[in-house]
Amino acid sequence: MKQYLKVDEWSIIEESFDPMTQEISESVFSLGNGYMGGRANFEEKYSGHSLQGSYVAGVYYPDKTRVGWWKNGYPEYFAKVLNSTNWIGIDIDIEGTPLDLAACTVTDFRRVLNMQEGYLSRSFTATLEDGKTVKVESIRFVSMTRREIGAIRYSVTPLNFSGTITVTPYLDGDVKNKDSNYDEKFWNEVEKNVESGSGYVTLKTKKLDFHVTTAMVYDIHVAGNKLDVEAETVDREKYVANIVKVPVKENEQLVIYKYAASVTSRNYGLGQLVEAAKEALQSAREAGFVALLAEQADAWKEKWKESDIIIEGDPSAQQGIRFNIFQLNQTYTGEDDRLNIGPKGFTGEKYGGSTYWDTEAYCVPFYLSTADSSIARNLLIYRYKHLEKAKENARKLGFTKGALYPMVTMNGEECHNEWEITFEEIHRNGAIAYAIYDYVNYTGDKAYLGQYGLEVLAEISRFWEERVHYVAHKDKYVMLGVTGPNEYENNVNNNWYTNRIAAWTMEYTLEALDYLRQNEQSRYAELVEKLNLQDSETDKWADIIAKMYYPADEEKGIFLQQDGFLDKQIIPVKELAPENLPLNQKWSWDRILRSCYIKQADVLQGLYFLSDRYDLETKKRNFDFYEPITVHESSLSPCIHSILASELGYKEKAYEMYLRTSRLDLDNYNNDTEDGCHTTSMAGTWMSIVHGFGGLRVQNDRLILKPSNPGHWTSYSFKVMFRGSRLQITVTDQSVTVTNETETPAALTIFDKEYTVSGLSTVSAQNVPVTI
Amino acid sequence: MKQYLKVDEWSIIEESFDPMTQEISESVFSLGNGYMGGRANFEEKYSGHSLQGSYVAGVYYPDKTRVGWWKNGYPEYFAKVLNSTNWIGIDIDIEGTPLDLAACTVTDFRRVLNMQEGYLSRSFTATLEDGKTVKVESIRFVSMTRREIGAIRYSVTPLNFSGTITVTPYLDGDVKNKDSNYDEKFWNEVEKNVESGSGYVTLKTKKLDFHVTTAMVYDIHVAGNKLDVEAETVDREKYVANIVKVPVKENEQLVIYKYAASVTSRNYGLGQLVEAAKEALQSAREAGFVALLAEQADAWKEKWKESDIIIEGDPSAQQGIRFNIFQLNQTYTGEDDRLNIGPKGFTGEKYGGSTYWDTEAYCVPFYLSTADSSIARNLLIYRYKHLEKAKENARKLGFTKGALYPMVTMNGEECHNEWEITFEEIHRNGAIAYAIYDYVNYTGDKAYLGQYGLEVLAEISRFWEERVHYVAHKDKYVMLGVTGPNEYENNVNNNWYTNRIAAWTMEYTLEALDYLRQNEQSRYAELVEKLNLQDSETDKWADIIAKMYYPADEEKGIFLQQDGFLDKQIIPVKELAPENLPLNQKWSWDRILRSCYIKQADVLQGLYFLSDRYDLETKKRNFDFYEPITVHESSLSPCIHSILASELGYKEKAYEMYLRTSRLDLDNYNNDTEDGCHTTSMAGTWMSIVHGFGGLRVQNDRLILKPSNPGHWTSYSFKVMFRGSRLQITVTDQSVTVTNETETPAALTIFDKEYTVSGLSTVSAQNVPVTI
Repeated sequence: MKQYLKVDEWSIIEESFDPMTQEISESVFSLGNGYMGGRANFEEKYSGHSLQGSYVAGVYYPDKTRVGWWKNGYPEYFAKVLNSTNWIGIDIDIEGTPLDLAACTVTDFRRVLNMQEGYLSRSFTATLEDGKTVKVESIRFVSMTRREIGAIRYSVTPLNFSGTITVTPYLDGDVKNKDSNYDEKFWNEVEKNVESGSGYVTLKTKKLDFHVTTAMVYDIHVAGNKLDVEAETVDREKYVANIVKVPVKENEQLVIYKYAASVTSRNYGLGQLVEAAKEALQSAREAGFVALLAEQADAWKEKWKESDIIIEGDPSAQQGIRFNIFQLNQTYTGEDDRLNIGPKGFTGEKYGGSTYWDTEAYCVPFYLSTADSSIARNLLIYRYKHLEKAKENARKLGFTKGALYPMVTMNGEECHNEWEITFEEIHRNGAIAYAIYDYVNYTGDKAYLGQYGLEVLAEISRFWEERVHYVAHKDKYVMLGVTGPNEYENNVNNNWYTNRIAAWTMEYTLEALDYLRQNEQSRYAELVEKLNLQDSETDKWADIIAKMYYPADEEKGIFLQQDGFLDKQIIPVKELAPENLPLNQKWSWDRILRSCYIKQADVLQGLYFLSDRYDLETKKRNFDFYEPITVHESSLSPCIHSILASELGYKEKAYEMYLRTSRLDLDNYNNDTEDGCHTTSMAGTWMSIVHGFGGLRVQNDRLILKPSNPGHWTSYSFKVMFRGSRLQITVTDQSVTVTNETETPAALTIFDKEYTVSGLSTVSAQNVPVTI
Repeated sequence: MKQYLKVDEWSIIEESFDPMTQEISESVFSLGNGYMGGRANFEEKYSGHSLQGSYVAGVYYPDKTRVGWWKNGYPEYFAKVLNSTNWIGIDIDIEGTPLDLAACTVTDFRRVLNMQEGYLSRSFTATLEDGKTVKVESIRFVSMTRREIGAIRYSVTPLNFSGTITVTPYLDGDVKNKDSNYDEKFWNEVEKNVESGSGYVTLKTKKLDFHVTTAMVYDIHVAGNKLDVEAETVDREKYVANIVKVPVKENEQLVIYKYAASVTSRNYGLGQLVEAAKEALQSAREAGFVALLAEQADAWKEKWKESDIIIEGDPSAQQGIRFNIFQLNQTYTGEDDRLNIGPKGFTGEKYGGSTYWDTEAYCVPFYLSTADSSIARNLLIYRYKHLEKAKENARKLGFTKGALYPMVTMNGEECHNEWEITFEEIHRNGAIAYAIYDYVNYTGDKAYLGQYGLEVLAEISRFWEERVHYVAHKDKYVMLGVTGPNEYENNVNNNWYTNRIAAWTMEYTLEALDYLRQNEQSRYAELVEKLNLQDSETDKWADIIAKMYYPADEEKGIFLQQDGFLDKQIIPVKELAPENLPLNQKWSWDRILRSCYIKQADVLQGLYFLSDRYDLETKKRNFDFYEPITVHESSLSPCIHSILASELGYKEKAYEMYLRTSRLDLDNYNNDTEDGCHTTSMAGTWMSIVHGFGGLRVQNDRLILKPSNPGHWTSYSFKVMFRGSRLQITVTDQSVTVTNETETPAALTIFDKEYTVSGLSTVSAQNVPVTI
């Protein structure tokens, strides 16, 4: 763990240049606008270690699967998020010497991610080998209001010489993915053009033929005056550039404003791409950099109005949560229902695919509370659209009915290939069902069940029905050979969480069927016919619900993560010598598997999801047993533990886990931030405040709040949208204040006392047991 | 399953040419001499589907590992048996048209593997597109007496024209492995030379620098007269050839005798390779093809004298066992103690590595009985030499002491990388210990324990000691997270076989220590010091032996393959619809894993190894439970089941399993013979006759025979070497006759009655219960 970033409530700040942390910073300072984005690479040449990455949402490549040993049922490909045309590039040459931070002396380096206004800035002074010194300043953003536009203001000022500075703005599509399975490049050139002042490249992906046109224009100013020069043009495969030689005097500032547009065949016809890019560019250039930047600040102001969380008295915690919210809002904005929330957003390319169970288990609650309900609904419909593919997937694995959603996907097809995950980590099906419940419960939109929800629920229940079997000598249904959320166990029998979420899915499906039968008779009849749903099936589900096997230890009063768990040697993590951690980097896989150590919440994940079914004592016994043997080596782990710890009154643990989830990437806890940020877990961070400290739940159509304070916060406040109202909830040591920022009244319960907050008004509960 | 080969007691015969079975035949008709060998590819060009393969024992390549998802502890490489210079090539061109069986009409095709004399012959008539017809005959062998030499007699006779036939004998080292992980070629050229009449290429492998020189000379005769022509020479990368244009009249036979030598840096200094190859070639050419072939027949006569098994009254069974013995003798001859028995011998390149547990569990018994005991001893010492590497391997996986032998190896290092196999299929350690017991028990060579055996046993026991742990609530030692012999289960807890063989290893280690303490005090003291063996360790072993946990079901009276086995749905294989089989080609991996189906003997493997510890009733209950759910999709499965079925008097099952093991490749039972033959399981075939039908055991320094007859065999006889004597044992319906072919007397027991067979004499037990 390495802490080199300065704590600040609204910004991420790096105050010196260190090549050793450059790739981590490239991840942390990433920019995105839901449509495109990229890592915080330097505009100018950089010959040190760097992961160059520019990404366009929804453009992917089905990379040929690489496995050592093929297993039947493996997918042929693994969908990769594509590194695409680098549009930020501006090479700088100072009288024959390229500016390269790996090859000069750098002072006064400062890089800032301004989260409040949504831009990245950087400034430094560089002294070249020959003693020439320049001051460089840059500002860059991808526009939240013009999704296809990125803009850069980049300035160079010679501090101790006059001479020629050569500026080479370029577009380079000759890139490849670091994680390309066979070192293959994924793009082919379609066309390109370059002239003085502008250029574009149109590339298409191999196999799927996604077309992307990236275009640039730029203006150069010296000492405040716009320059009118003829540039030398350069082009080579997938690359276009302008070379502009600019004579500059000592202390005169040379500024290049570079505007780039990326448009794709996902949104335009092939014949329209170049024109669309040019139009977007022209409009942006006409507006000008300053106006674009102002638009950007305004757009982010709106975002923050909906989703900000304020923590008073703990700048580090404040910075952590804002960073998480910022990255989530950069990654997914919900307008395009073909997109989903990739595990690394636009910050890296590891993992591939765009959709994991993270979306349903972690991200849906965030978007439910911080955005219009249509956005969470789009995330649900995304899975509805993949239902046929999920059914095919189940057939492929030998199931005669039902649907198994993929572990990782870009288009509904499975694209992950480790048997213990792909075939066995089937609890994902439960999270997809749970998200429907979560959405309906939160929004009250029961119509969703008849429109989309029930079909998904029924097909998942059918899968579970076939996946379990009855064992006479136990008089129970069992489920063999699964991997639970804790991926440090593989191929176990009767994972409590999976059995539980399976039975719960069937329960909720029956409940949804009942609701429709009673309230939407004709739709009910239609669905029964469409699904060819038999009474024998629903009877079987009821039987499975009644007789599902749940491993447990009576003596300890805990649920067992799986059959035989107590045959393991149980030694708390804190008794392990530090050199053993992180286990996933230090231990062989089999040692991890047969150890008691848990990667992420498993039984506890179930107690979180089904919180209202279990009493505090049950949660406490399980937490007390499992948390001490949990290593939290999944980014999805600390948040769930923080929430449960809050509920149980374990304030220190809740705070420890909160810092771990909120500063996971800022402090590089898992020693892997260089690969990209852990984007989906950032929604978990939000949950650890709102569901954890805030104690927010929705029961019987009411918001319930039982907030706690982790101890040393003066106050904290968060916003939630709930059934048409937007509420700001502020918690201090002894009070909970709810301000309704909208005209829609909201019904809520604070510490068991009911309130109604009228439109545009505030209620406050004083002397409530926040700190107990 | 495809039966296209003619049944014959001494030969494998194919009587028509079918491109669809060409790759299967290439495997089945393979040649080898323990030093080198290759698939039955055609000498002339063949443009149809073919796996071209020539292999030299001990020459391998550490191919960069390919995995989808890296696990800590995986080896960096997977050792590949190397496809090396093709020395058999003789291209034939008939007046401008290449002879290519994929591009002409083939009649009278006949391919014969003469197992009695050790050569491959082929004849056919080919009519080209232009109507020209030639008759071709070839004979090829790799010499058993001159290991570096291969020889070919290849004749072409024009049947309906006179004209020019161009003969191009060549050496082609520009080959690659079909299973190369990254499509890489593994050889670099060092030097080559070609002149009229001869040529050579010297190649070296990438990374490990094995050098192999392959050289050729040839003679051409027309109508019985040796031709003296100047050949055109050709060379390109790793390739040399002579082009000889030969005018031939209608019905005149053109014959080319091609001699090739392969010598390697494993046996010669780099500067000596070319000279060594030339000397070997010159001597072979001087002897001439006819004499070399006679030498070959004599050498094989000797082999058969030691190892033949004769079955009267069942030619298909006879052919099966001879094919198995033939391939074993082609694969490993025991002279070179750096070699081992690759799972595909010289018949293909799948799997890679040379050494699996197959060697100890299946092959050692064969070599113990059919060859001088020094050969089995060499196989044991091979592992002794790898002890340090096995200790390193255990350290790498996190064990503080002990040795874990690799799953697959070429040089002692692990080179397999599936976690569920590499890290978990640790029962291999038990087989390596068991082979020491087997060797000592069979040969009586107890000195081996002090010389080599004990160190290996002690380090393996130490591994088991650390791999199990004590569970207080059971008052037992358990072993979690293993894969047993049945690879259709992964990561199970308390695999009965593994727990049993682990405890057995510790027992035998303590027994060996006792023996040394009592009989070799000074060596004992030396070893205790060398091993730093503590009383606390041996006490712990005794405790583990006493308290090992063995899963069992009291009611059924069976051992459980692993914890929870009876929670599976138990449905006999015969109730599965045929389209489900073979499971490994039809079912997804997870479906296989959670099913009850067993790939190969697991509990039953233990009952076979530790046969004298279990009574017939116990074996019967377990066999009756497990065999019906066993799919025998490992080549190592049918033999063990045949042996147990013989012991239990299940004659039909024993015979069914015998045919399946003995004709596995001939009849392509597993639909994968095109990849190569299942060489190591062939030793299992031998066991199914000698240990199975023959009922041979060694107890208290005596051979025990309790033969049975599978039913319709007039008689069968096999040979075993035992403590200096070689016995031919002939079994008829009611008699067992033992002929001692040596001067050393032998003590044996036939059906509980003791006999001594003096040198060069015969005893016969009449009216014994063979058929009961």
